[in-house]
Amino acid sequence: MSTPVGIAHIGIVGFRGYSGAEAVRILSKHPNCEPVLLEHRSDAGGDAKLLRKSSVLRAAATPEAVGAAGITAVLLATPPEVSMDLAPKYLDAGAVVIDLSGAFRLQTAERYKQWYKEEHTAESLLASAVYGLPEYNREATRCAKLVSNPGCYPTAANLAIRPLVSAGIVDRAAGIVCDAKSGVSGAGRKATLKNAFCEVTENFSAYSILNHRHVPEVLQTSGLSEEEFSFTAQLIPIDRGILETIYFRTVEPMTAAEILEVYLAQYRDEPFVRLYEAGNVPDLKAVQRTNFCDIGVIADPKSRRCVVVSAIDNLVKGAAGQAIQNMNLALGFEETAGLL
Amino acid sequence: MSTPVGIAHIGIVGFRGYSGAEAVRILSKHPNCEPVLLEHRSDAGGDAKLLRKSSVLRAAATPEAVGAAGITAVLLATPPEVSMDLAPKYLDAGAVVIDLSGAFRLQTAERYKQWYKEEHTAESLLASAVYGLPEYNREATRCAKLVSNPGCYPTAANLAIRPLVSAGIVDRAAGIVCDAKSGVSGAGRKATLKNAFCEVTENFSAYSILNHRHVPEVLQTSGLSEEEFSFTAQLIPIDRGILETIYFRTVEPMTAAEILEVYLAQYRDEPFVRLYEAGNVPDLKAVQRTNFCDIGVIADPKSRRCVVVSAIDNLVKGAAGQAIQNMNLALGFEETAGLL
Amino acid sequence: MSTPVGIAHIGIVGFRGYSGAEAVRILSKHPNCEPVLLEHRSDAGGDAKLLRKSSVLRAAATPEAVGAAGITAVLLATPPEVSMDLAPKYLDAGAVVIDLSGAFRLQTAERYKQWYKEEHTAESLLASAVYGLPEYNREATRCAKLVSNPGCYPTAANLAIRPLVSAGIVDRAAGIVCDAKSGVSGAGRKATLKNAFCEVTENFSAYSILNHRHVPEVLQTSGLSEEEFSFTAQLIPIDRGILETIYFRTVEPMTAAEILEVYLAQYRDEPFVRLYEAGNVPDLKAVQRTNFCDIGVIADPKSRRCVVVSAIDNLVKGAAGQAIQNMNLALGFEETAGLL
Amino acid sequence: MSTPVGIAHIGIVGFRGYSGAEAVRILSKHPNCEPVLLEHRSDAGGDAKLLRKSSVLRAAATPEAVGAAGITAVLLATPPEVSMDLAPKYLDAGAVVIDLSGAFRLQTAERYKQWYKEEHTAESLLASAVYGLPEYNREATRCAKLVSNPGCYPTAANLAIRPLVSAGIVDRAAGIVCDAKSGVSGAGRKATLKNAFCEVTENFSAYSILNHRHVPEVLQTSGLSEEEFSFTAQLIPIDRGILETIYFRTVEPMTAAEILEVYLAQYRDEPFVRLYEAGNVPDLKAVQRTNFCDIGVIADPKSRRCVVVSAIDNLVKGAAGQAIQNMNLALGFEETAGLL
Repeated sequence: MSTPVGIAHIGIVGFRGYSGAEAVRILSKHPNCEPVLLEHRSDAGGDAKLLRKSSVLRAAATPEAVGAAGITAVLLATPPEVSMDLAPKYLDAGAVVIDLSGAFRLQTAERYKQWYKEEHTAESLLASAVYGLPEYNREATRCAKLVSNPGCYPTAANLAIRPLVSAGIVDRAAGIVCDAKSGVSGAGRKATLKNAFCEVTENFSAYSILNHRHVPEVLQTSGLSEEEFSFTAQLIPIDRGILETIYFRTVEPMTAAEILEVYLAQYRDEPFVRLYEAGNVPDLKAVQRTNFCDIGVIADPKSRRCVVVSAIDNLVKGAAGQAIQNMNLALGFEETAGLL
Repeated sequence: MSTPVGIAHIGIVGFRGYSGAEAVRILSKHPNCEPVLLEHRSDAGGDAKLLRKSSVLRAAATPEAVGAAGITAVLLATPPEVSMDLAPKYLDAGAVVIDLSGAFRLQTAERYKQWYKEEHTAESLLASAVYGLPEYNREATRCAKLVSNPGCYPTAANLAIRPLVSAGIVDRAAGIVCDAKSGVSGAGRKATLKNAFCEVTENFSAYSILNHRHVPEVLQTSGLSEEEFSFTAQLIPIDRGILETIYFRTVEPMTAAEILEVYLAQYRDEPFVRLYEAGNVPDLKAVQRTNFCDIGVIADPKSRRCVVVSAIDNLVKGAAGQAIQNMNLALGFEETAGLL
Repeated sequence: MSTPVGIAHIGIVGFRGYSGAEAVRILSKHPNCEPVLLEHRSDAGGDAKLLRKSSVLRAAATPEAVGAAGITAVLLATPPEVSMDLAPKYLDAGAVVIDLSGAFRLQTAERYKQWYKEEHTAESLLASAVYGLPEYNREATRCAKLVSNPGCYPTAANLAIRPLVSAGIVDRAAGIVCDAKSGVSGAGRKATLKNAFCEVTENFSAYSILNHRHVPEVLQTSGLSEEEFSFTAQLIPIDRGILETIYFRTVEPMTAAEILEVYLAQYRDEPFVRLYEAGNVPDLKAVQRTNFCDIGVIADPKSRRCVVVSAIDNLVKGAAGQAIQNMNLALGFEETAGLL
Repeated sequence: MSTPVGIAHIGIVGFRGYSGAEAVRILSKHPNCEPVLLEHRSDAGGDAKLLRKSSVLRAAATPEAVGAAGITAVLLATPPEVSMDLAPKYLDAGAVVIDLSGAFRLQTAERYKQWYKEEHTAESLLASAVYGLPEYNREATRCAKLVSNPGCYPTAANLAIRPLVSAGIVDRAAGIVCDAKSGVSGAGRKATLKNAFCEVTENFSAYSILNHRHVPEVLQTSGLSEEEFSFTAQLIPIDRGILETIYFRTVEPMTAAEILEVYLAQYRDEPFVRLYEAGNVPDLKAVQRTNFCDIGVIADPKSRRCVVVSAIDNLVKGAAGQAIQNMNLALGFEETAGLL
């Protein structure tokens, strides 16, 4: 795709959700883009009652809007079933589609049904969908018409785990543990008792232990088998941020500095992966409202035990930020435009 | 009502809600009572999956349960429309009823309709319902069959305001401002977008400014007119607690110590009202998980400005605790039983 | 001051505090500026241990840094006593100084001593310091060498109250109540038991009732007398944001729409004041991480009661954002540069 | 020790700290005890300014108070260095001592120095100190003069891990991971920047990865070696509660129900350990303000992966509650007195 002349109009479906609203915020400051809010019937909630009205562009979430509003790309910040419905229509209308749902992340409809417990209704698109983890799929994304934006948990997990597995330094017989914690915005903007304020505040809870639907994304990208990978998702009583504490043993005794060399070999030039000095790890404040994935390493060479902490903002690098990073690649913009 | 022999069975409808669950907790430690959970079709949510099952008594929320389970009193921790349906039935079945909803707080059906925007469907009970603010209605409550438990905001407001108005020290021409803040449990246990964790955390918002349905309870008890009383409800991102900051001018210059004398005259022997030294005010930590209403006074005699801070736990003195205080009175138990 | 050629170097003393760090964040995205971190001996805390070091400019917080680092303006995000020490030195070194402390906000040293309980040690600068509330002091700020940035509470209060008082619509005999609530970052970044997490979370507390040191700033700008103005500061268990609920009576019966006309007359063209439709008010989410002051009005003409809600982010419009707005004016940049 | 006649006076040193205050709360409702607040020079903070003064007993934290106030036992809710100073004095004065610090938990002074980085100054008491984990040391505690109350993290960890290790079902070659999360009250009541509200809220951070001073307590009780045990402590932005997510592989394929049989064999009659149905795990709300340790199991027999979640309230079962459970044993009271 050639670089567009002037400012590109980018449609967002689901702009009232947390990821969609974050995308609108980022696009509003993007040097090459202007957001177009696409109203979908499934949207809930209204707008602020300001006297001076916002001048943001709006249209109905129909394929016709693509031509009528001169839309170059559409971000689908929608549930998988809505994405499976809308993605083919927007592609037919000529837009690049970046889907933030889980609809196109797994490689086969069978695997989708196994983990999402629903039929896939747009199976024909699976073959051409590019899994948009730019650190590993940058070139494919540049040519993509349909980008499947990675899940929030898998983004933090794969960026931390894949280099270790690729380098062959993980004692896979002992397995890898990924203890993941997320802010509540990861569950989306909807009214549920589970996410009601009084149920969450001053609480901490684990869910989907060993069977979270994000697990197959980690297996697919990291090369681990399900048996080697133990994953627990947990809810922190905060708005946003994911921190994953990852435990494994190295095949040979290695210091944190030596393990960091493996990461440096992979990420030295990556704009959105930051590494910490040996013995230091990130907290969530370091990454909130940024598109960074921060990684730190602690190791005890004697026992070959290693702990890696990987942190992202689930709404940015885990959703809208990475979606715009992918959009930048697919539309030929500077990869970091609007994101630093 | 004569004092029951042995342990009284107390039914709770709405025991999965926040107020109902608090009532169960208090009754479980009450020396004279044992709770009976009354399952109502409107209940949401399930119970903890413990291997060793709880031995708490249970029954269906029907009038027949009163006789079958030997129930002496029923606490209705239900919405007004459910209370209007159930209260007559439980009264007919011979139980004392303590209603925690707004159904029987206002003295006429007209006034109910005006503020609650719904028809009253149990109007015949309004005349006999006792408004259960024990500090002012103790004797009537001892003989009551139906006690209407005060609202959370009005409890904190009336305990602070009524003695001042009664003593004639308030410059009523200047009006009284009551700026009220509540934890989110005051909105009840239900799935709404408004109370979703990410909407509330790190936020603070005002609602029902000048027209909250708790206003007429304050007018009815304090003696103020609507024109004299400005009330704003606000949501604090916490689980529980109400703090009201009350502003007025004294008719004559008065020090905080002099104003405290007015309170002392009223509350010296009250078990659940605590006063602070002149110049000191309570915070929410002082009252959470207690049945106390804490009151402190700041005054500037020169300008006759006065600020009173009144704090309660909305689920205890503002709901379940006061309900059990009322129940203790109505059943002839020690007023403070289970509450200190 | 003429518009500088190229990028201006802006020094920040106190860059590890909450206001200072916010200033660095804003300046990092400012089209005309680049921040220079000025290390002062009073600073606490260290920097993130990233492998790839940040390229932000740094220097010691000495007057010599002004010439050595080509610094055009210095933001002092420091306690008043440090500001009184440093401001004259940086002014002598030729820099424009924007002081975020209370050191230069009150017009006389006597008044400073009365409210801050300390001697003023830079009294000679008081006459030339411009009180930087741009909506009222825009022209003076354009020529200022020393700008005194308003306090957080007074910014929200004065923007809401001054137009009402100027228009003569407030019944001043009844007084104005300003019930103010602030996130904890307003107290600064320091280790105190009062601001320890477990003391604040799930709590809500009032402090400095009727005698907060921000009161004289409100009197000075709004034209109210101390006797007419009742102010309470309160701590919300959140990071950032100020919401003030303001109560008064109009002289004549007025609707919310009529009161909004008063605001519109004043703020129609202001870039950072937003008004809400009659009957709607802002919450904190509306203003967090923005330089806006949002104002909404509720009124009951019959009783002449009126409630105005004014909300800002205490670290942005209440501190660093307004400081940069003032800096933009003083250095001849676009007033909104870096702030939208 | 024979059962005391009447009500026992129990001294608390450190009663203004979070654990100490919790002990006072529990003892105030204890059927056999009355608390005596022992003022120590290291105490910070003051008391609520209530007009009606509390009638709680008070004395100076000196050994003479034991005789003068008729004190039977003293709870030391103090830092290790204060406990090493006071414990011998109170023992000499004839009181039973329950120490909540880490001073007497490890079996040798060498091990104390290795993990606490300080000299042990009361080494002679180590031999007679009983490690008060009642589920494993009940009989020894009944005869103890000095009880060393377990750490918060080790309580949750040992109750979950020891039965598994004892039963020989853990694949120790693969190691056990304990990913622990704690509310902030675990850090004690003191003014530090690390625990300041704005540093903690909306954040989540790991600390003491692989080298937390609580690790040797887990090794000592569970029978694991340091090489087999990977432990990370993490801060949840809440007041209280510890949740530990524990990962291991079983030697042979086992279902969650089979693993629960191992726990049932150990804990069937324990009053303060609760087990969940297979496939269910506790959250923090289930245990806050209780003395329970709740344990749930998830397992995948095919891959032999197992996840155990163990939850306690760090101030109750992790500190004051367990201390009073130990005191009950040492003084001959009902073990559960004051704790249900």
